[in-house]
Amino acid sequence: MSDGGPVLALSGGVGGAKLALGLYRVLPPDTLTVVANIGDDFEHLGLTICPDLDTLLYTLSGEANPELGWGRRGETWTFMAALEKLGGETWFKLGDGDLATHVERTRRLAAGETLSAIMDDFRRQLGIAARLLPVSDDNVRTQLETDRGRLDFQDYFVRLHCEPIVRQLKSAGSETARPNPDFLAALADPELRAVIVCPSNPFISIDPILAVSGVREALRDCRAPVVAVSPIIGGKAVKGPTAKMMEELGLPVDAAAVARHYSDFLDAYVADEADRDAVAGLDLPVVLAPTLMVTLEDRETLARIVLAAADRRRR
Amino acid sequence: MSDGGPVLALSGGVGGAKLALGLYRVLPPDTLTVVANIGDDFEHLGLTICPDLDTLLYTLSGEANPELGWGRRGETWTFMAALEKLGGETWFKLGDGDLATHVERTRRLAAGETLSAIMDDFRRQLGIAARLLPVSDDNVRTQLETDRGRLDFQDYFVRLHCEPIVRQLKSAGSETARPNPDFLAALADPELRAVIVCPSNPFISIDPILAVSGVREALRDCRAPVVAVSPIIGGKAVKGPTAKMMEELGLPVDAAAVARHYSDFLDAYVADEADRDAVAGLDLPVVLAPTLMVTLEDRETLARIVLAAADRRRR
Repeated sequence: MSDGGPVLALSGGVGGAKLALGLYRVLPPDTLTVVANIGDDFEHLGLTICPDLDTLLYTLSGEANPELGWGRRGETWTFMAALEKLGGETWFKLGDGDLATHVERTRRLAAGETLSAIMDDFRRQLGIAARLLPVSDDNVRTQLETDRGRLDFQDYFVRLHCEPIVRQLKSAGSETARPNPDFLAALADPELRAVIVCPSNPFISIDPILAVSGVREALRDCRAPVVAVSPIIGGKAVKGPTAKMMEELGLPVDAAAVARHYSDFLDAYVADEADRDAVAGLDLPVVLAPTLMVTLEDRETLARIVLAAADRRRR
Repeated sequence: MSDGGPVLALSGGVGGAKLALGLYRVLPPDTLTVVANIGDDFEHLGLTICPDLDTLLYTLSGEANPELGWGRRGETWTFMAALEKLGGETWFKLGDGDLATHVERTRRLAAGETLSAIMDDFRRQLGIAARLLPVSDDNVRTQLETDRGRLDFQDYFVRLHCEPIVRQLKSAGSETARPNPDFLAALADPELRAVIVCPSNPFISIDPILAVSGVREALRDCRAPVVAVSPIIGGKAVKGPTAKMMEELGLPVDAAAVARHYSDFLDAYVADEADRDAVAGLDLPVVLAPTLMVTLEDRETLARIVLAAADRRRR
């Protein structure tokens, strides 16, 4: 049965994780594999921090913080308060429970384990049936050329609150990073039902996945339908710097521009009903749907729509 | 004025820190230097943990946890709970606020700073006027030969709850560790008023200080009086494995045995009134005093008694 086949989702953090959770809930257990962006990863306070992987880990395990939109449920902040008293760097907020993920991951990386193996163990420990794959076990780091010079991603994103004007983005390390073999194997699997590009920021969440050598080609060659969900709703980004960044990069801030960004491998596109006009000129099948995910039901509904769009495009 | 001269205190963790706090409170600001045991230090979860230095740091800054007797005031435990969910090692309890000390120290050590420089900055950040010196910037680690084989200190002390029978102790690394130059300079200072050996476990807290090459000799040669305070009260240890260890090492469990342990450099000894008979045969000046420190006032009273005993022995 094709409907029971494996599904791949490519995702960044918060926005993408919402749809990933919807997919996880509507698909049979074990059929979902989420491939995570690692371009946001960085070293801070001597710890290896992987924001998108962790957001997915917390979201899929039900540990995500519903109020903050990031971090963990029931989080405490004693570490940050104590670090501040010691004169440590406090611009990047690390919750006490979140720290366990970073400390344990850093310890295991130093002991020679791969990021994939560690995250696979973490998701099992937290009871997640879906697989969670970093796109590579090698470093890929987003760097931005801005009006304030070259910036590492978290300096731009957190420390400078996305204020600098972005001229260009780079996925440093992507040329030599080896793609996760399980990801490539999943893309080549004849049973693969669909590849879903989650509504994440195309430049900072999806491009670093696509930039890993061989990934974009594998997506083009993939026999399963590739369906993207627009992160732009009504000409605006739901959250984060997507719209500001598109403007600065000289792109029209609309849902169609995102589809064109993926045009070489995309088979269908799911855009918001509010963007009907914007996507009218696209020469690929477009499904209009309510894409704003507020409730858990919204996530599940959108997941079903996206899967149906994919199933209609099976090659 | 000799009464305003610098004072050195040698200390382990909890018991020693109580007297160190008493000394800190009764002495003029800036005159106290506490030299801390580093034999308990270890690497855990990829972090460098220095229990005695941190107990002193928290005690002298008023951050110590009065209920637990270790760790920090107002501590939370979200990290440990999250670490347990991830399948991490949980036998050594690290509070969320305490973690800030370990993470920041580990980061700065990796950046090339010395332990001394880091701890000196930490104590300043926490508003401590006294100096806090690790006995060395090189590693000295207590190892125990026991009926269960050779054990690292924290495996014996925390993981195995001091249950193994101790045959012998070793301060691994002490032969090559370079003593803290500020410690040696303080010992050689003609203005030095006194050296106080705090009521810490002689084998696991004070011996690793004495074992660092040159320290024991410098104490013998020191012109200032050296006064120790008995950690044994009424033939028992106030806390921890001191008495059990003395028995296993074939020593009489009494206050006199501790004084004899230090006999080559000791000028006076402060023992508890309950141990009058036990210390009667010692051939050095003994001051009997209430040595059990429950209240802050107890700590200050004992500190004054110890300083007076030293002042009477000025050479």
